[in-house]
Amino acid sequence: MTTHHPTAAIIIIGNEVLSGRTQDSNTQYIARGLASRGIILGEVRVIPDIENVIVETVNSLRKNYSYVFTTGGIGPTHDDITSASISKAFGVPCTQHPEAYRRLKGFYDDRNEPLNDARARMTYTPQGANLIDNSISVAPGIIMENVYVMAGIPSICQSMFDSIKDSLAKGALIESASVKSNLIEGDIATELAAIQKHHPEVEIGSYPTKNGDQHMVEIVMRSTNPSALSEVEKKATDLVISKGGKLFSA
Amino acid sequence: MTTHHPTAAIIIIGNEVLSGRTQDSNTQYIARGLASRGIILGEVRVIPDIENVIVETVNSLRKNYSYVFTTGGIGPTHDDITSASISKAFGVPCTQHPEAYRRLKGFYDDRNEPLNDARARMTYTPQGANLIDNSISVAPGIIMENVYVMAGIPSICQSMFDSIKDSLAKGALIESASVKSNLIEGDIATELAAIQKHHPEVEIGSYPTKNGDQHMVEIVMRSTNPSALSEVEKKATDLVISKGGKLFSA
Repeated sequence: MTTHHPTAAIIIIGNEVLSGRTQDSNTQYIARGLASRGIILGEVRVIPDIENVIVETVNSLRKNYSYVFTTGGIGPTHDDITSASISKAFGVPCTQHPEAYRRLKGFYDDRNEPLNDARARMTYTPQGANLIDNSISVAPGIIMENVYVMAGIPSICQSMFDSIKDSLAKGALIESASVKSNLIEGDIATELAAIQKHHPEVEIGSYPTKNGDQHMVEIVMRSTNPSALSEVEKKATDLVISKGGKLFSA
Repeated sequence: MTTHHPTAAIIIIGNEVLSGRTQDSNTQYIARGLASRGIILGEVRVIPDIENVIVETVNSLRKNYSYVFTTGGIGPTHDDITSASISKAFGVPCTQHPEAYRRLKGFYDDRNEPLNDARARMTYTPQGANLIDNSISVAPGIIMENVYVMAGIPSICQSMFDSIKDSLAKGALIESASVKSNLIEGDIATELAAIQKHHPEVEIGSYPTKNGDQHMVEIVMRSTNPSALSEVEKKATDLVISKGGKLFSA
């Protein structure tokens, strides 16, 4: 796709994903939100809760992408080292953010509970950062230049992403179409390659799947050019029919 | 953890994951299998179906990890470029593998179907590669030195991983324990940090979650030292009780 698009990378900070204990679901939520704004998600990295790994990964990706989103590691416990690591990545001190402090202090005062040192960790951000609101937890996310630091808990991560999504730059909308049939990939691969060659402006993917014991293949087309997309969708549909395939709704 | 462990990285090759269309589930399956062999999963990258990105990612990771596992892009269609890209990464030609050819030829002969050019793509591997069997599809995965190339379809990927898992080097077994309670992280964070400081041989993670409207926190401990693990588990349990928390089964 030659149209201009903002780009993004996601960094999932989480030993619990690398150990297999937790199934990450934040990637798909953020990916869909980015796609809906015409932002190209270029890569995702899952990394451990290790400071120098976070620092190096953030510094390498923030130079190469319009936006970097991180999830995980912003709570009150000893393994929540994201804010300190992002500060180090930017070469700034990790300092108490007055607005974050005001919010957490108010929250715990209302509950007659102390804002102890552990909870106060959540009020520290890289110096100069802005806050990301969320509707679920009083602890905010962090925006540092083009790096968006969000929670690992899916409901909070999603709420944080929703609260900043409309502020992201918009790219040309990437529309998609899908043609699903009971053929298998080998039946259509040669002709599909020819269609792809003639329509470089449409990204054509082929995904085999199963419906019970029934082999299926889904041809997924994505483009910023709606008329090219329609043309390729028609060609893919004709291809399936010409091969004796039966169409299924995707 | 100071014990010696083999290490691994996973590369998910898939535009469909980056667009948000597909939820990756191969990572968790592979991660759990690696953990069960005492192999440390150091990172996961999700990258697009772009040759030079695959080449660079494979070459960067295969030097730094004992094993690299890739998923996706080994079918018969134009977007299946993994085998050619791995060949390029190793600087060897992508040639027809006699045994892969024999298997696919036999399979299509039995069905009275041609092994057309598209299907024959699945018989090409980096020169010198070995094959990975699977119980579901006739198309094999590929082993090239320490790089294991597997399918993207979860059932096939899992079958391929199962068929090679026992051949991987074993590290000291990492055992885990978990203490779940109705406390919140801020209640226990200070004491938990102190426990972590006294037990560097146990990796302690704290994961807030919800049970309906009930806030919960799960303390997860991992170690290759069973007696240290038991000691930390007891300390974590005592901490929860001392804070008036109620224990839940994890």
